[in-house]
Amino acid sequence: MSKKLRIAVLGAGRIGRLHIGNLSARISDAEVKVIADVYAPAAEKCAADFSIPEVSSDPLRVIEDPDVDAVVICSSTDTHSDLIVAAAKAKKQIFCEKPIALGLDRIDAALDAVEKAGVKLQIGFNRRFDSNYRRVHDLIQAGEIGDLHVLKIASRDPSPPPIEYVKVSGGLFLDMMIHDFDMARYLAGSEVEEVFTVGAVRVDPEIGRAGDIDTAVVTLRFENGAIGTIDNSRRAVYGYDQRVEAFGSLGMAETANRRPNEVRIYGGSAVKEDLPLNFFVERYTESYVAELKEFVECVISDRPTPVTGLDGRMPVAIGYAAKRSLDEHRPVAVSEIA
Amino acid sequence: MSKKLRIAVLGAGRIGRLHIGNLSARISDAEVKVIADVYAPAAEKCAADFSIPEVSSDPLRVIEDPDVDAVVICSSTDTHSDLIVAAAKAKKQIFCEKPIALGLDRIDAALDAVEKAGVKLQIGFNRRFDSNYRRVHDLIQAGEIGDLHVLKIASRDPSPPPIEYVKVSGGLFLDMMIHDFDMARYLAGSEVEEVFTVGAVRVDPEIGRAGDIDTAVVTLRFENGAIGTIDNSRRAVYGYDQRVEAFGSLGMAETANRRPNEVRIYGGSAVKEDLPLNFFVERYTESYVAELKEFVECVISDRPTPVTGLDGRMPVAIGYAAKRSLDEHRPVAVSEIA
Amino acid sequence: MSKKLRIAVLGAGRIGRLHIGNLSARISDAEVKVIADVYAPAAEKCAADFSIPEVSSDPLRVIEDPDVDAVVICSSTDTHSDLIVAAAKAKKQIFCEKPIALGLDRIDAALDAVEKAGVKLQIGFNRRFDSNYRRVHDLIQAGEIGDLHVLKIASRDPSPPPIEYVKVSGGLFLDMMIHDFDMARYLAGSEVEEVFTVGAVRVDPEIGRAGDIDTAVVTLRFENGAIGTIDNSRRAVYGYDQRVEAFGSLGMAETANRRPNEVRIYGGSAVKEDLPLNFFVERYTESYVAELKEFVECVISDRPTPVTGLDGRMPVAIGYAAKRSLDEHRPVAVSEIA
Amino acid sequence: MSKKLRIAVLGAGRIGRLHIGNLSARISDAEVKVIADVYAPAAEKCAADFSIPEVSSDPLRVIEDPDVDAVVICSSTDTHSDLIVAAAKAKKQIFCEKPIALGLDRIDAALDAVEKAGVKLQIGFNRRFDSNYRRVHDLIQAGEIGDLHVLKIASRDPSPPPIEYVKVSGGLFLDMMIHDFDMARYLAGSEVEEVFTVGAVRVDPEIGRAGDIDTAVVTLRFENGAIGTIDNSRRAVYGYDQRVEAFGSLGMAETANRRPNEVRIYGGSAVKEDLPLNFFVERYTESYVAELKEFVECVISDRPTPVTGLDGRMPVAIGYAAKRSLDEHRPVAVSEIA
Repeated sequence: MSKKLRIAVLGAGRIGRLHIGNLSARISDAEVKVIADVYAPAAEKCAADFSIPEVSSDPLRVIEDPDVDAVVICSSTDTHSDLIVAAAKAKKQIFCEKPIALGLDRIDAALDAVEKAGVKLQIGFNRRFDSNYRRVHDLIQAGEIGDLHVLKIASRDPSPPPIEYVKVSGGLFLDMMIHDFDMARYLAGSEVEEVFTVGAVRVDPEIGRAGDIDTAVVTLRFENGAIGTIDNSRRAVYGYDQRVEAFGSLGMAETANRRPNEVRIYGGSAVKEDLPLNFFVERYTESYVAELKEFVECVISDRPTPVTGLDGRMPVAIGYAAKRSLDEHRPVAVSEIA
Repeated sequence: MSKKLRIAVLGAGRIGRLHIGNLSARISDAEVKVIADVYAPAAEKCAADFSIPEVSSDPLRVIEDPDVDAVVICSSTDTHSDLIVAAAKAKKQIFCEKPIALGLDRIDAALDAVEKAGVKLQIGFNRRFDSNYRRVHDLIQAGEIGDLHVLKIASRDPSPPPIEYVKVSGGLFLDMMIHDFDMARYLAGSEVEEVFTVGAVRVDPEIGRAGDIDTAVVTLRFENGAIGTIDNSRRAVYGYDQRVEAFGSLGMAETANRRPNEVRIYGGSAVKEDLPLNFFVERYTESYVAELKEFVECVISDRPTPVTGLDGRMPVAIGYAAKRSLDEHRPVAVSEIA
Repeated sequence: MSKKLRIAVLGAGRIGRLHIGNLSARISDAEVKVIADVYAPAAEKCAADFSIPEVSSDPLRVIEDPDVDAVVICSSTDTHSDLIVAAAKAKKQIFCEKPIALGLDRIDAALDAVEKAGVKLQIGFNRRFDSNYRRVHDLIQAGEIGDLHVLKIASRDPSPPPIEYVKVSGGLFLDMMIHDFDMARYLAGSEVEEVFTVGAVRVDPEIGRAGDIDTAVVTLRFENGAIGTIDNSRRAVYGYDQRVEAFGSLGMAETANRRPNEVRIYGGSAVKEDLPLNFFVERYTESYVAELKEFVECVISDRPTPVTGLDGRMPVAIGYAAKRSLDEHRPVAVSEIA
Repeated sequence: MSKKLRIAVLGAGRIGRLHIGNLSARISDAEVKVIADVYAPAAEKCAADFSIPEVSSDPLRVIEDPDVDAVVICSSTDTHSDLIVAAAKAKKQIFCEKPIALGLDRIDAALDAVEKAGVKLQIGFNRRFDSNYRRVHDLIQAGEIGDLHVLKIASRDPSPPPIEYVKVSGGLFLDMMIHDFDMARYLAGSEVEEVFTVGAVRVDPEIGRAGDIDTAVVTLRFENGAIGTIDNSRRAVYGYDQRVEAFGSLGMAETANRRPNEVRIYGGSAVKEDLPLNFFVERYTESYVAELKEFVECVISDRPTPVTGLDGRMPVAIGYAAKRSLDEHRPVAVSEIA
């Protein structure tokens, strides 16, 4: 391994571009050696913008490159598991965007390959690296709020994704609430045993016609006895709403949204503040940097990654349980799925 | 009717005392003519403290007093419905503390008597008169947050009631969450169709041995399509926690707890604020005044009361549905009960 | 002295009425025996509204009434000192609205009479009893922010008083900032040595034509080494603005305004809150009760009053110093005046 | 000029290093071509860390380099004006840290050279690019708070600089409050006419022995009629305190400090938040990027810089006026100095 970790980024879409920018500018122990995208112009554009020396339209060949130490997988979801398997066989360290796959069997195949190869795998649940969530996590772990009794997660997007995306994404539970299922496990420090879903189409009937819902509240029962709720909406007119409240035997921790400034304006009819940061690129800027920095450091110093393959698998299983609860109108044990 | 509404207060316990104080000092259109309590010394103590001219240990005789225009029923829950029936027959206007009764049949009998007598009945859901909740209610009614999608109610007491009370109170759903079921209907402006309960004993095993739970999250489905959650705990170490969040198609409204002062203290290790107001007497001081003021005005100007007999009945029905959901581990339609 | 402190209220204007209401409804150890106002209808109206047994149009005769234990002086400022002198001679306990007088000689004469008579005198600086200011005061006294370095007081009215009042009130320094000079002494726990004033007419040129200013910043040097600033405006369009910030060697305490509710509303363009409580009647409701309660208790249990004659005198002296600083465009020592 | 603006950074100390990092990672239209520091190892260390191709220990020779388009002057204050003059003569575009010099004659000489050469000059008052201050500035400019009546600036450091620095820095007014004088002019959109200073040694007697003060409140009178206050302390135990409040005829805008997270923790005795961001590197991270980005864009698109030579000169003049006010214990017109 060279002094800097040599990385191949697979996928030059929005999230790939974001990771390439961070790796170039803010993570000094890594360098992007090559960008691969089956759509070559995307890779070329990225390479030009960030002065990356090499591009490819063949991710699998890039994975074989002996000068590549690690891959960052940002391609479309349906390619993740195959690329993980290929990268594992090539003994590359792997960072993969969530979800690993929409099918648990494909996830299991990927995790199996990783385990056999003995390489590292980190899943891109970036919110774990957000300063708000991390602080709450650390408070809980340190026992500062005592035993966790109730955990409430609010997670609302500023506007729905394109309807074409909704049709292939796996739906609300797998493309959106999956982040919250991860957050629930991360904060509670415990597995989810059972879920109960109430869902509705309130934002856009088109979403309903595509077979999905756009508004949902899921109740969670954790192994450690805590009770959780997650509420999702595809559209909050006031922007990206990402908050958590953790209530325990010794206290409570709650987070507020990040704002573009800390100004309060008193006028003749109301006191006003600007809206919260609008979406994930603004809100989670630093957490995207932090997760990759952590991945690079884990590889370099040979430590376990903080978001494991299991962490990638469980939210998908919970997502299926939530979906089944909605369909069958009953509480569903995650063990029915996983 | 005399110029001032002449009121008999039935029951001189904690809440009776509170109402007597408010009627004496802050509601100029009413006067407490007599206090009745089966435990005479309680009535006498109250009468002395607030210069009330008359006491009795026989509520039923007081109800017959032709110089009494209205009764305020603050006696123990099991006496509420009989006193309502007696007062209705005597053509008195009635303010009654919640719940009307623990049994729906007794509630129905009481409401029936009220209807037949054509008298007014107002139930003591004082939180509707709190400036926070009222503001959120008015915002929703005015359409300022659009269609209601998600309603979240947090309601936590500073410490559990005596275990003897737990044994006879009807339990968490009927003595505590009943307020929140009322709040849910009040804010949503819609009936609850179905509930799903997750409950646990986390605060005190003694409560479990008494057959109750001390921690619960109930998910609600409203007729108008909104989804709600209520979380209750018998003990929040930081005091009385009473908040609501209403999310809709055009915005969101959230409340914070009231504090004893608006001071922030920056020290060498943290920024601190004093804890919220500790319990209902401090927190809802003004709402207790406002509900009785409203009752008195409704009687004097012959307007319908703002919290009706139906408003007293429905939270009890929802409470039984929530209990059944917990027992049978499934979503329960309120129509199964009501 | 009877069991209840028998009080004569002298002056039945806005503030007199407020005190009568509080004494009647919320201070059980006192009773208003008589209301005196040279304008008889005002006294009669008050008496009727609050069921006060007796009225008079002659304050001096009321002061002589042997059945009166204490007087609460709420008449126009120019009568305060004479009434204090008369009440002292009649051995009545005295609560007097601020200022004692506009002239230091009259103040001194009044304080002299009080001292000779050995009666109690409390000045109506009600803000000292506000929960925000009291908390900051107590923090400072307890040493929690260490040595006080900087004290900042913001005090802005929602709108200017009538121009007729401005002409006779003594002007901004004596009718408005006098409260802040008192607050400065109260919080700093130290005397003001020197002031420097920058003032302007920004709100209404009519105020300038009346010989006054409507906007001012006064810098204070305290004996204990702290530095203070007070800023006043006759008009804040967003309502009554009453805040303080105390910065010391070990920390900082700041207050926020009280609001009518704790609701935050997130819409499509901004996050909004309702304006702060509009003016002193709403904002200082409780402090008016608390100051009289304290006065009554001090009399009954023969303790020194918490706001003394000297506390009434010093803010007037500082006011004159601030005025001289404005006129002579230089820092002025309070010792030049006092 | 090459496609990217080729920059020489003069001075590789703390602030130079910060600018080099930002230019390298976050400002894509610029490249650091060379780092010059009279202390060669500092330049070499920086160059290695940020992969800068060239170093020098002779700033003047670097200025002559025909491949350099612009210089960023971060060396010690006493070298600023000479480097500006040299760079101007060499027709380089100039970004210079504040202050230009401690003497107004040297400042004038530098500005004169810039004007003659027709090059651009931007002074490093980075706080103008902070999202809080910029928002308040824009609100004022847009007339949203009406005419400015009162402007209050709080600016407190977490701890004093080394005493050796205090001795040569020009003192509190020129090394610390200079930023606030700039902020005052920037926000008020008006020149300061007169100042009055109250100062003290409260933090560390050693600072007093070095001939400086550590605590000061300066009152400002602006040409446009607004009144301002600035309070500075060398030590706020709770960290870097940087806030402003602008009060006008139509409203008020106030800022709060930035925090490392938005978490509130409710425990058994208090509600807590983590302390604000500790110092300027954390607090003003983004404003340092933004000011250089703006400089680079101004040069590339040949626009006037947003912080001019005059903007560099006036705060120094105000600083001298504030110092004279302290020494002579009287209000001092800035025209006495400038």
